[in-house]
Amino acid sequence: MAKKVVIIGGGAAGIDVLDLLLRGKEGAEKMEITLIKKEKEGFFSTCGLPFALQGMYGIKELELIEPNYYIDKGVEFGTGTEVTGINLENGYVSVDTGEDIKYDFLVIATGSKPFIPPIEGTNLEGVYTLTGKEDGERVEAAMNANRSGNALIIGAGLIGLQTAVAFSKKGINTTVVEMLPHLLPTILDADMTSIVQKWLHKDVTFLLGKPVSAIKGDHQVRAVIVEGEEIPADIVLISAGMRPNVDVAMKAGIETGESGGIVTDRSLRAKKGKSYLNNVYALGDCVEVIDAVTYRPRLSQLASTALIQARVVANNILGISSSYEPCLSPTVAAISGLQVGSVGVVSETARRYGIKLKVGKAIRYTRARFFPGRKLIIVKLIFEAHTEKLIGAQIISEETVAERINELTLAIKERITANDICMRERCFEPSLTMVEDVIVDAAVKAQK
Amino acid sequence: MAKKVVIIGGGAAGIDVLDLLLRGKEGAEKMEITLIKKEKEGFFSTCGLPFALQGMYGIKELELIEPNYYIDKGVEFGTGTEVTGINLENGYVSVDTGEDIKYDFLVIATGSKPFIPPIEGTNLEGVYTLTGKEDGERVEAAMNANRSGNALIIGAGLIGLQTAVAFSKKGINTTVVEMLPHLLPTILDADMTSIVQKWLHKDVTFLLGKPVSAIKGDHQVRAVIVEGEEIPADIVLISAGMRPNVDVAMKAGIETGESGGIVTDRSLRAKKGKSYLNNVYALGDCVEVIDAVTYRPRLSQLASTALIQARVVANNILGISSSYEPCLSPTVAAISGLQVGSVGVVSETARRYGIKLKVGKAIRYTRARFFPGRKLIIVKLIFEAHTEKLIGAQIISEETVAERINELTLAIKERITANDICMRERCFEPSLTMVEDVIVDAAVKAQK
Repeated sequence: MAKKVVIIGGGAAGIDVLDLLLRGKEGAEKMEITLIKKEKEGFFSTCGLPFALQGMYGIKELELIEPNYYIDKGVEFGTGTEVTGINLENGYVSVDTGEDIKYDFLVIATGSKPFIPPIEGTNLEGVYTLTGKEDGERVEAAMNANRSGNALIIGAGLIGLQTAVAFSKKGINTTVVEMLPHLLPTILDADMTSIVQKWLHKDVTFLLGKPVSAIKGDHQVRAVIVEGEEIPADIVLISAGMRPNVDVAMKAGIETGESGGIVTDRSLRAKKGKSYLNNVYALGDCVEVIDAVTYRPRLSQLASTALIQARVVANNILGISSSYEPCLSPTVAAISGLQVGSVGVVSETARRYGIKLKVGKAIRYTRARFFPGRKLIIVKLIFEAHTEKLIGAQIISEETVAERINELTLAIKERITANDICMRERCFEPSLTMVEDVIVDAAVKAQK
Repeated sequence: MAKKVVIIGGGAAGIDVLDLLLRGKEGAEKMEITLIKKEKEGFFSTCGLPFALQGMYGIKELELIEPNYYIDKGVEFGTGTEVTGINLENGYVSVDTGEDIKYDFLVIATGSKPFIPPIEGTNLEGVYTLTGKEDGERVEAAMNANRSGNALIIGAGLIGLQTAVAFSKKGINTTVVEMLPHLLPTILDADMTSIVQKWLHKDVTFLLGKPVSAIKGDHQVRAVIVEGEEIPADIVLISAGMRPNVDVAMKAGIETGESGGIVTDRSLRAKKGKSYLNNVYALGDCVEVIDAVTYRPRLSQLASTALIQARVVANNILGISSSYEPCLSPTVAAISGLQVGSVGVVSETARRYGIKLKVGKAIRYTRARFFPGRKLIIVKLIFEAHTEKLIGAQIISEETVAERINELTLAIKERITANDICMRERCFEPSLTMVEDVIVDAAVKAQK
């Protein structure tokens, strides 16, 4: 008899599992797959939104897959539908249409929802979040209605900064407020973020180390209160992080961890009571991962994390045993042409977890020093002091950052030392690289 | 007493050892360093020549370091000088000025010289090689004197193709003749080179699988004979590979191997009779390396190889024990805007050494499929069949090739499998990467 797979959630995590099950189906046991999602689109790329707001393409182009694509492949693809309950004992989910759907395998990919600070005024008109197509359309309309107005962004993470650039490009007077004392605190050390801040200082005003205490206005937002000061604002974007969306899972008794995400084993099976559930998997923004450096739980709310987890879940459902490794969360983003990348721990995280450090920072060019068009590149490498193994890396340049982060992700995973980095050959051609690369220079400096 | 170090050769290898000894000198035992080189420049970047010929900068700009830089640091920096003999028993070298120079440590970095095919006419005027400043100036003068003339290049390696692009850009009718049936045979498989050939076909005529039998002319070159056919040529560039320059070393009884390069141990000490010499190191284009995949000897005539070897030699002279690992020779080059990269073995080399293969090839974009400015990228990954460990990689695109080759160099070195590649997270941001990267797709395909 055909196995019934039910996937809750149609963001990157759910769609990746679906795609991988469909790719794997040929020759394998036939499956009946149901996917339930509350959004109306097949698959929408939220990561692409800031660039749409910058005018690089229309928001519509981010609807990458329409529901019919999956329906034509025989998938029950339920858009605009919400799961109201999970019955783990009897193996079915209840949806808001009143229907109960039986499953042999359940995949929980419920994603995340924006954190809304507990302050007055977050429900005023003109206050937005940016997590899907509808959000994007609302923010775009607000931008177009408020050219030469004032925008205020709460939170100096990647999405906050990328959206600040979009606002600023439209001529909107843009301010970013961050509670912590520097930008991008989860991926960069303070000395590295100062480069990003300098890069953006003409376009964006920063208020750092300052919490927002209230959003003011009647009906429509008018201002934001930051340390007693009233800052005028026609648009407010709340970009203060995402919280795992675990309501339905918790209601069913599924365990969440200290990070707020669903606890899983290495097969990504969810847990209830003392046992991991044989046929219930969870992945994506709603789960807790184990950090590959600290071995402590945390979140990794990235489409790239979801893809790897989806391979594990799909394999296990297809009968191919597969397990998820501790997570490094390599991250990259372009902010107004400046590429910022990070992997592993930042210095402060390492210290918080009791790891002593050796750090090397270097600045060089991306191409030979005589080659036209070369760009500056700054690399900071973080090593565990006593083993000199790489545990973190941060890179800023106008080019080559993403691929270097991928290399250093592998380096951390394979427990490469500073000396290994210095003694490993790297390809050289003056129009493309320097013979002694900035990564090597940083590793040399860390050893001193 | 100060140790005397004598370095023979002032190409990348010799200069790298010199630089690293100077960097390491502080606090270490003082040294007296002599470098002897036959060229007149301090350090000249030969790798930069093809782009100078393409007009991106002047040849003069490639003289990166002047002799005075080293002389001011107390180095005996002998330019325009040739070593005529090495006396290993008594520890001195003889130079063409008649002088004998004592050494405590000798470093042989004599480099390579162009292979000149044993055919008639190679000494005619208008026949060039391209291995230094003077060669570069001669070829540049010939290009300028023969606009709308005919150029013929013998050898379809990287330098040959990059120079062909320079000729073609100046309006010169350019033909490349290669004895082997495809371009770039040492770094690409035939299916991958066909992409490069197609890219260049408007600018360059290719005659492949055809040896040159003679160069014709009286005094000045007039034509080249390829399979009986006479091809008119005003300029001929011989770019048919480099041979280790080992005359002086062999005369002293130092052993060379099956590749023609000097044999060394892992400390890069040269060998005479049955023993490795305690105080004689050799590195760079003139030495034989051990291949990291086949474990058989070969040459690795790259500035990047020389740099790593220089670290080993300098460390050992400075009393820091250091050894040279088997070599992977990661390579990259831009040919008319197309970036071509390779590391490890090509398929034919693997087969020649009895290695069975699983191969995966994929074509994707460098950025998200909806992102403007994305480029196509083609990756071929070569795995050992029974272990599925990566042993070779070839990449072609207009961007990101060099950094990906560096990542895959580490992957081969760390014995990463196809499955490891699929299960390792890679950073994602739609303006910079695809969520499922072309490297992952190639690894997935290899497993099928």
